Amino acid sequence: MEVIDRTERIRSLRERLDGADVPGAIYSLVEELYPICRSITGNGVRETLAILGEFIPLEIHEVPSGTRVFDWTVPREWNIRDAYIKDSQGRRVLDFQDSNLHVVGYSQPVNRKVSLEELWTHLYTLPEHPDWIPYRTSYYSESWGFCMAHSAAEKLKEDEYEVCIDSTLTEGHMTYGELLIPGASSEEVLFSSHVCHPAMCNDNLAAVAIMAALARELRGRQNRHTYRFLFIPATIGAIAWLSANRDKTRNIRHGLVGACLGDSGSFHYKKSRRGNAEIDRIVSHVLAASGDPYEILDYVPYGYDERQFCSPGFNLPMGCIMRTPHGRFPEYHTSADNLDFVQPAALGDSFSMIRQVIDLIEGNRYYLNTNPLCEPQLGKRGVYSHLDGPDRLTQQRSLFWVLSFSDGEHSLLDIAERSKVRFDFIRRAADLLVRVGLLIEQPRTQ
Amino acid sequence: MEVIDRTERIRSLRERLDGADVPGAIYSLVEELYPICRSITGNGVRETLAILGEFIPLEIHEVPSGTRVFDWTVPREWNIRDAYIKDSQGRRVLDFQDSNLHVVGYSQPVNRKVSLEELWTHLYTLPEHPDWIPYRTSYYSESWGFCMAHSAAEKLKEDEYEVCIDSTLTEGHMTYGELLIPGASSEEVLFSSHVCHPAMCNDNLAAVAIMAALARELRGRQNRHTYRFLFIPATIGAIAWLSANRDKTRNIRHGLVGACLGDSGSFHYKKSRRGNAEIDRIVSHVLAASGDPYEILDYVPYGYDERQFCSPGFNLPMGCIMRTPHGRFPEYHTSADNLDFVQPAALGDSFSMIRQVIDLIEGNRYYLNTNPLCEPQLGKRGVYSHLDGPDRLTQQRSLFWVLSFSDGEHSLLDIAERSKVRFDFIRRAADLLVRVGLLIEQPRTQ
Amino acid sequence: MEVIDRTERIRSLRERLDGADVPGAIYSLVEELYPICRSITGNGVRETLAILGEFIPLEIHEVPSGTRVFDWTVPREWNIRDAYIKDSQGRRVLDFQDSNLHVVGYSQPVNRKVSLEELWTHLYTLPEHPDWIPYRTSYYSESWGFCMAHSAAEKLKEDEYEVCIDSTLTEGHMTYGELLIPGASSEEVLFSSHVCHPAMCNDNLAAVAIMAALARELRGRQNRHTYRFLFIPATIGAIAWLSANRDKTRNIRHGLVGACLGDSGSFHYKKSRRGNAEIDRIVSHVLAASGDPYEILDYVPYGYDERQFCSPGFNLPMGCIMRTPHGRFPEYHTSADNLDFVQPAALGDSFSMIRQVIDLIEGNRYYLNTNPLCEPQLGKRGVYSHLDGPDRLTQQRSLFWVLSFSDGEHSLLDIAERSKVRFDFIRRAADLLVRVGLLIEQPRTQ
Repeated sequence: MEVIDRTERIRSLRERLDGADVPGAIYSLVEELYPICRSITGNGVRETLAILGEFIPLEIHEVPSGTRVFDWTVPREWNIRDAYIKDSQGRRVLDFQDSNLHVVGYSQPVNRKVSLEELWTHLYTLPEHPDWIPYRTSYYSESWGFCMAHSAAEKLKEDEYEVCIDSTLTEGHMTYGELLIPGASSEEVLFSSHVCHPAMCNDNLAAVAIMAALARELRGRQNRHTYRFLFIPATIGAIAWLSANRDKTRNIRHGLVGACLGDSGSFHYKKSRRGNAEIDRIVSHVLAASGDPYEILDYVPYGYDERQFCSPGFNLPMGCIMRTPHGRFPEYHTSADNLDFVQPAALGDSFSMIRQVIDLIEGNRYYLNTNPLCEPQLGKRGVYSHLDGPDRLTQQRSLFWVLSFSDGEHSLLDIAERSKVRFDFIRRAADLLVRVGLLIEQPRTQ
Repeated sequence: MEVIDRTERIRSLRERLDGADVPGAIYSLVEELYPICRSITGNGVRETLAILGEFIPLEIHEVPSGTRVFDWTVPREWNIRDAYIKDSQGRRVLDFQDSNLHVVGYSQPVNRKVSLEELWTHLYTLPEHPDWIPYRTSYYSESWGFCMAHSAAEKLKEDEYEVCIDSTLTEGHMTYGELLIPGASSEEVLFSSHVCHPAMCNDNLAAVAIMAALARELRGRQNRHTYRFLFIPATIGAIAWLSANRDKTRNIRHGLVGACLGDSGSFHYKKSRRGNAEIDRIVSHVLAASGDPYEILDYVPYGYDERQFCSPGFNLPMGCIMRTPHGRFPEYHTSADNLDFVQPAALGDSFSMIRQVIDLIEGNRYYLNTNPLCEPQLGKRGVYSHLDGPDRLTQQRSLFWVLSFSDGEHSLLDIAERSKVRFDFIRRAADLLVRVGLLIEQPRTQ
Repeated sequence: MEVIDRTERIRSLRERLDGADVPGAIYSLVEELYPICRSITGNGVRETLAILGEFIPLEIHEVPSGTRVFDWTVPREWNIRDAYIKDSQGRRVLDFQDSNLHVVGYSQPVNRKVSLEELWTHLYTLPEHPDWIPYRTSYYSESWGFCMAHSAAEKLKEDEYEVCIDSTLTEGHMTYGELLIPGASSEEVLFSSHVCHPAMCNDNLAAVAIMAALARELRGRQNRHTYRFLFIPATIGAIAWLSANRDKTRNIRHGLVGACLGDSGSFHYKKSRRGNAEIDRIVSHVLAASGDPYEILDYVPYGYDERQFCSPGFNLPMGCIMRTPHGRFPEYHTSADNLDFVQPAALGDSFSMIRQVIDLIEGNRYYLNTNPLCEPQLGKRGVYSHLDGPDRLTQQRSLFWVLSFSDGEHSLLDIAERSKVRFDFIRRAADLLVRVGLLIEQPRTQ
């Protein structure tokens, strides 16, 4: 039954993704992925990638435990079947089946009796949000623990408790997904999102679902750039990919890490380590043109996987796009980052915003005015007949801006920035001028 | 009689220009030019240049219709003798003799009967300013029309009207005036103003008269730079000059287009396309030093003839100096831009301001401190005895500024900018230091 | 008696300087120097340097009168034994023994009778501060005069006065003190303060005493840089030193002129002529990190001896550190700049602040992250166990900042500026990373 239901749901989801309800479809994909228990290794990631694979032809990579990746080693694979705390009456006072956040990620297997006092040394709660379960992990030091609503933990009485974590920590693999969409040029755009978090929606199923939707759309069209999408466990996944693909990084011209893209907050863009990369200027332009509030953040060497992509030996032109940044919303890394915390409207808005970034990446070129001595006479070429609507004046001025600065040293983005005219006007003006022969593309001089 | 009067007026005007009443003389020159019907070609421009020629030895250029000038073609010559609209009673309800704005510039000849309804399709009015006549032209598409006060047009009753435009549009010439004032160096300063507008004072008789006065003054003294003045039809005139003088543009070091220089508003300077040309810094310095409000505008590729001089193939270091910019005053391109709208005080102020710009162009040089190791002892050279008045401290500090930064890499303008001391103080300090041998001029390193 | 007292005082002062009461000791040193009558030449400077020599092994230089130093000539030596104005009753109405400010510096000897009217032509007073004695000098024009409280001068009645200045102006020497503290490198840091002012504390005994204390401390430790301290007469002393040591200026990497360092105002740092020298950035960083108000002033070619060190032929990277700048406090150059106007707390605070500048000069280096491809795994190296206290998060982030930007192109100061983290955190993070082998020093690429 469940399998048939899922097949049906996926079919419907594909249709909606390709149709008019992209925001709703992205939300449904988040719903589909929400129940799965993920960690940096294990079957949860495999199941997640299998679902994404229903929409895009993901290549699945399995990196064996123990593999050296730069300064790091791929850890043992962790899987979990069940976990609970039972009181002396045999009642489950905590049940992994209720929420996969209940167990500290990478907890070693355990099954024994403990006093309330000892139990508390393995309990994590959030007194300031007593009904929320916190999210905790312990990847690189051996331990075990439970995460619990503080209100529930406080009700625990003196008793002998049975604690059980039915997990395995064995030689296995770390799994990640990759998709390459070749374009006319080998110049590459890299999108990366982490798939290692269990049941939390804003961090990071929102970004995962949006990236899948973007990849599906890009597959369906001709692109100037090659696009690469990574769905990877945070930190160790990025390091493993970079370690295995060091040579490929030379082609990366632009990139974005996506995270926290489903909440209702305004956009925050964290710039690349370079600080003035084209992607930094592109995202800033798109956000400024939106008219909505937004914030541009300087690069700091902590955060998401941009830390790895921007490490000094790589220094890739990659920023991080978020709505409310991690740590700035109380629901962050708790059970309150749930299906209510993200909404189709915000997901769709994030999707559109990144699509505009892609349009700008694709559309930003250098041109040469073929008639640079004085203004060309636009009237006799019928150019004015192509202008219409309430933006007519902006359209006309965009023509002059493009003509005036297409000297081989200004890209269309440079012109949009200098003119304070939205890129799409500049882009359309350039198209029209190319059509009448007043503009020719120029190999970029950057 | 009229000819004798004019001769007398011109003689008096010359005297006033060379004497103490320059502002009044400039205003009288505007008055003299006001009645003439000008367009981009025709006898109006010739008559205008002939009057200017009474004050400065203008060279008159006649460019034949049909001449290719870059992407453009010099149009046929347009002249007009008379025009009117008569009602069925034979009364002139509109008369070209009242205002040369009444006819759309470059209207084809017409003489026929029309209904009120058809007449309205050829009428231009300004409902928001019902008593003003708008200014309209149709240089490059064949048509005809009348411009009329909206209040008068509204009074027109159903009737059969005789419309007559007694114009000619024939192979002829486009006329412009040019004056070269050679200086010690072939490095050139270009001043340009358009002479193609009929009876409107701020746009552009004010600038035309001021430029003529400046040229007359520059002819009477020794200059370091060569000065060139252009009195040209807008757009086609600038294009024609550039087309015929492409090689000469290499000598142009600074330039200004002047327009709208007679109204009571504050100065607006539109920077060159380069944005940091010396002329941009010079005008900014003069305006800032004035203590009066002013505005510096970034270059945009629309406006006056700076569009042509700054087109990417030329990219000349030329800005545009205005008081209230075109389009920012309601009288712009209407009959209300009349002899009341410009005043001697504003005309004189604009004249003085540009003369200060010229002083700065002439005075900005590079020097070398001949005693660069520690401060020279100014006292033993009697330098302090040259300082006096309430500005004594500024004079003294100017000496230190000039000595400290005359290292061959800072011009006097650089020093004025860095010290925030007015250029004339810096200039006088340099002169004094040259006199006592502590400074020598240095070929510029720009 | 006095000699014995002084010996005892100096011994005690040395102990306090080397112990916990540095601020108090600096104040006592100011007290010790206060009564001495100094000028740009003469025994007052010698006596001052002799006292400083009790704390640091000063080298004393004697430059003969008449020596040419660049554009200047060392003047004759001035000494004074006594001076007074007596009324006809023989009462001293002004007595040099009360204050060495009473006589215009470099006054020629005089001994004669004058009327009240003539006396006034030689009197300097401050009507706006009637009880203060102004400080005046006349180094380079021969004259004589007295400085007096305006309230006392107003009480002078018509009388015949005996004016006596028992001074000598003879071929002699200009004296200054110098101390070189060699470091591991020949790259030099120069500190300079003027010792030519008579009984005034903020200008400049405060800076003199602080510099002596700093020199004493630097002598007691290993330094990376070589340090040079100059105690010189203003202007002529700086010029004489530069004239005699032109070749040595090539080693100067950083420098500070110190003045007005004892009042209760906030710090003011005047940048070097270069404006972006490392010393400019270092002092700005230290002041910003202090959390206290401060002001950074652009270079102007007047002020203290930075005028000479920054003259265009030298253009040394030297700024001027002050609390309230000269001329911005009414007590400036008057008898009110006395032992009440400076306080141990401000003196100690200035001392500490410059010591921090020295720490930053010593500690600012370039490093190379030895593991630049992705983040190194800090946990396995035990790095986190070194972090503790309430600043733990800042300490941890400092590690990431240093790793991220130690690419051979960013100094630790660059990293502190970019991260907005205080230099000492960055410095300590670098030390820890060097210890675990993740960082190696890199020859600077500046």
